[in-house]
Amino acid sequence: MPMTNPTAAMLVIGDEILSGRTRDSNMHYLAQELSRAGFNLTEVRMIPDRPDAIVAAVRKLSISHDHLFTSGGIGPTHDDITADSVARAMGVSIAVRADARALLQAHYDRSGQELNEARLRMARIPEGAVLIDNPVSAAPGFSLGNVHVMAGVPMVFQAMVASLLPTLTGGTPLVSQTWRVMRGEGEIAGPLARMAADFPEVSIGSYPFQRDGVYGANVVVRGADPAQVGAAMIRLAGLFPA
Amino acid sequence: MPMTNPTAAMLVIGDEILSGRTRDSNMHYLAQELSRAGFNLTEVRMIPDRPDAIVAAVRKLSISHDHLFTSGGIGPTHDDITADSVARAMGVSIAVRADARALLQAHYDRSGQELNEARLRMARIPEGAVLIDNPVSAAPGFSLGNVHVMAGVPMVFQAMVASLLPTLTGGTPLVSQTWRVMRGEGEIAGPLARMAADFPEVSIGSYPFQRDGVYGANVVVRGADPAQVGAAMIRLAGLFPA
Repeated sequence: MPMTNPTAAMLVIGDEILSGRTRDSNMHYLAQELSRAGFNLTEVRMIPDRPDAIVAAVRKLSISHDHLFTSGGIGPTHDDITADSVARAMGVSIAVRADARALLQAHYDRSGQELNEARLRMARIPEGAVLIDNPVSAAPGFSLGNVHVMAGVPMVFQAMVASLLPTLTGGTPLVSQTWRVMRGEGEIAGPLARMAADFPEVSIGSYPFQRDGVYGANVVVRGADPAQVGAAMIRLAGLFPA
Repeated sequence: MPMTNPTAAMLVIGDEILSGRTRDSNMHYLAQELSRAGFNLTEVRMIPDRPDAIVAAVRKLSISHDHLFTSGGIGPTHDDITADSVARAMGVSIAVRADARALLQAHYDRSGQELNEARLRMARIPEGAVLIDNPVSAAPGFSLGNVHVMAGVPMVFQAMVASLLPTLTGGTPLVSQTWRVMRGEGEIAGPLARMAADFPEVSIGSYPFQRDGVYGANVVVRGADPAQVGAAMIRLAGLFPA
């Protein structure tokens, strides 16, 4: 595994995720995008809308990873406390910023709505942050150091990821290939373990399935070097002919 | 919020989740089941199949919560290292146990398959653990102290949760009611914040949506006391008539 790729962590913020009311989809989306861009996502945490929990997790994960991506809690309501908590975690001040305010003013002018006090909260940006464009609903995300703060609504989150990722320096995208074996995992485990020892540069995962009473496993080979992944696939095809 | 309910954390273990290859569904399932049974799920972590990562997370989360539930990494292949890592985290030994072995032997005898060395790994149980029944594919999960170790395959995970949860002492299930408001979140945020201050015993969340160009929000009131939740719903109906 290419451990020289930049590492990433994600923080999913929201009571509604932990209560089971809402099924998070941002984690899976970001995981796929990060893999493609050559970042190693090595930890995800999901926590409630509580300032202390956010501050502690942001501090911990921003120190231990090259990048931290957050989703949730940057809307206009009283439970949207992410921006203020991130500012506190990073030890900087936060206030309504002119450029963020202008983005919101233009958006609400176009739709004939009022930029009231609640909506203006979405222009609160920590000192020193860089805005992340939100082409869906204007209210921006922001990057503060290596912490990238984005919305929880999936359509907005995805648009922000599309704005942000090209601005970050990724690594070598992993090559991934899958070999399907129509035998129970317990039968292929021994040969797979020996093979994994022979190919230390790639990661070999086994994902069992059962369909119509037939057992099988998808064996996934992942690595940075296409030649190594290819050699492992040839070994797999020899061990478990199709 | 009834903070006297038992607290719970979850640990989702698996490279395939973090790489984006597989979309986890166990977290959402467990979150719903825990809410119903009166547990407060306050943290979820997703980590790779790495012994050090598992040991550190199990230690941290088992100390800081009443219960820790894990999913993933208890199959027969070389990347299934959860049981050994949990034993190490809790400072106990691990070996093939007679009762777990008998469960597997009976299962493979029925299906005419061999209980080989790889499959026998699934009978490795930490010292002092209590088995969790697996009516789907026999290989058991286990509870070691307050750590409940279950499979990653969703069908098996769900069966294990069904076996386990009735044996744990839960708390007061939260009552949850939703009021739909067909106005943008930014317009209702002010009144909602004042209302949240008036009802400190309940949690009030606002979840915006957009459908066919119309903005709205589902306002969710959650609490342990049905009377308090009811009173909050009456206030909501007054503030934002249907």
